[in-house]
Amino acid sequence: MLQTESDIIGHLRAAFPQRDDIAPLGIGDDTARLAPGWDLVTMDTMTEGVHFERRYASYGDIAFRALSANLSDIAAMGGEPGPFLISLAIPKPGFDEPALQSLIRGFVDCLDAHQVKQCVPIGGDVVRSAGGFTLSITLLGHSPAPGPVLRTGAQAGDVIVVFRALGASALGLELLQRGEQDRFPALARAHLRPLVDVQLGAAIGQASVVSSMLDLSDGLWTDLPRLLQGGIGARIDADCLPQHEDILECAEYLGVSAIQMALTGGEDFTLLATVPHAKLETLRDLASLVGCKMTAIGEIVAESGVTFEHSGRPLQVDDSAFRHF
Amino acid sequence: MLQTESDIIGHLRAAFPQRDDIAPLGIGDDTARLAPGWDLVTMDTMTEGVHFERRYASYGDIAFRALSANLSDIAAMGGEPGPFLISLAIPKPGFDEPALQSLIRGFVDCLDAHQVKQCVPIGGDVVRSAGGFTLSITLLGHSPAPGPVLRTGAQAGDVIVVFRALGASALGLELLQRGEQDRFPALARAHLRPLVDVQLGAAIGQASVVSSMLDLSDGLWTDLPRLLQGGIGARIDADCLPQHEDILECAEYLGVSAIQMALTGGEDFTLLATVPHAKLETLRDLASLVGCKMTAIGEIVAESGVTFEHSGRPLQVDDSAFRHF
Repeated sequence: MLQTESDIIGHLRAAFPQRDDIAPLGIGDDTARLAPGWDLVTMDTMTEGVHFERRYASYGDIAFRALSANLSDIAAMGGEPGPFLISLAIPKPGFDEPALQSLIRGFVDCLDAHQVKQCVPIGGDVVRSAGGFTLSITLLGHSPAPGPVLRTGAQAGDVIVVFRALGASALGLELLQRGEQDRFPALARAHLRPLVDVQLGAAIGQASVVSSMLDLSDGLWTDLPRLLQGGIGARIDADCLPQHEDILECAEYLGVSAIQMALTGGEDFTLLATVPHAKLETLRDLASLVGCKMTAIGEIVAESGVTFEHSGRPLQVDDSAFRHF
Repeated sequence: MLQTESDIIGHLRAAFPQRDDIAPLGIGDDTARLAPGWDLVTMDTMTEGVHFERRYASYGDIAFRALSANLSDIAAMGGEPGPFLISLAIPKPGFDEPALQSLIRGFVDCLDAHQVKQCVPIGGDVVRSAGGFTLSITLLGHSPAPGPVLRTGAQAGDVIVVFRALGASALGLELLQRGEQDRFPALARAHLRPLVDVQLGAAIGQASVVSSMLDLSDGLWTDLPRLLQGGIGARIDADCLPQHEDILECAEYLGVSAIQMALTGGEDFTLLATVPHAKLETLRDLASLVGCKMTAIGEIVAESGVTFEHSGRPLQVDDSAFRHF
């Protein structure tokens, strides 16, 4: 039985040993104290009934996914992830010791899967919730030496690239909601336990090779305009979108368009970058070195607005798909 | 009408101009970027139905109180508060533009009331909630030059001090829940819009004058043992607790013991410190300089455990009072 906030904090402290090199003061005082150099900070929150349902997501899945979302934000700056703070708002009944162990295991699994050795919990807050479970994470990170990679900086003529097939997470969510995750377990996993581009982001940051970057959390259709500042636009060729057999088969099974899912599905957490033509092959090689495959999907144009083409014709995007807000 | 996360972020950006000296990259990219030197970090979460009820707390009150709780954590380290991140989980209906303006006004009021000029929002997250409203804040801060003031360090013989009358917040909550806040508006205000010891904490940190410190968020009875590490104990003389006319009158009106409220009531957010006898008068003068009054309420003893005395006799503490967890 978990009686108090102290019990929960005690379990977290036991699971994650103090790391003086990262945060000389970790869990247990009024605040944590950071070692110098953590100059990036991001915060992501996931709430029950909006970002997940307990009927298909374990506490471990929720922890994994929330931490991945934060890791992806640091990667999108070209940075390296560091210590993090965890805020748990937990409903009174139901959050017992096995639930806490599942949550801790989810954090450990996520850290192991991404091989992020400087990423440890150093503090946070534990409170009761009168509603569902809410997990909020604050993650710190190091900027790359050339400075963080911003959302601003794209220029007309730059190539737009992604590093993974899009739509997997949205299809995985649909399967989970239908209880049919066993048909395409890799897609369900892409939603519940997303692997994000931690090494790729850091490599891109060090190499100073892209003109702008973000991570796709709300879907290409929503996120791409965030790179289009100062009157520029974009042209996307849907024929060039990276393909994935599971995605095509699952879309067919569900009777939805794989292309629409790729354009509007959220939470794929792959990096979306713009790169000058002259640096395109450098970026391709860099991605390849960390095990990722770069795909050019369009270009930045001088006129504002975004156009999508498919088989040489304009494509209407159906914006009624998956959105949290 | 607030349609999207972007609308809400737009209003926050407009209310709080970018401050390059504090965070060269603020609201609007994948992460914020901090100026060097913010080495303290804390996180506090407040949830509807546990930490507040919407029937008596405006969004402005909730913002004020959540930010005060974080400011108090930095003060408890002897630090100076810096930039902060805001995570909002908002229910679909009911959070309209007036609600957002009230929330923003609450942050502004809190910052003005505490005169914290380096404290600005630099990022965060806005998500939907399927339950109530949840506000989570991550606040950064600077350690004082001698290093942060820790919870460890108290020694037998040290004097235990506080800087304000205790129990005001718990009584204020009781009034609010009864709808009788107009009888003692200062107490209701102490609960909804607590003023915390920002200047005092920073002054204590610079002067390196106390042996240990924390802020009273869960009440003296719960928080004091957190300073008692390594086998030491404490003796509290309840006759010495600072008095406050409103608290005495309100306790009598409500038919509760003012002393029990002082010992067990939460969220007074005053600093609790231990100080060597030789430095007691230095601390008293220091507190006076920033407009606070130090009161000695007991001492650290060599034997473990906490004893409370009242009129020379042992006092039983009723631990059934106000607790969030």
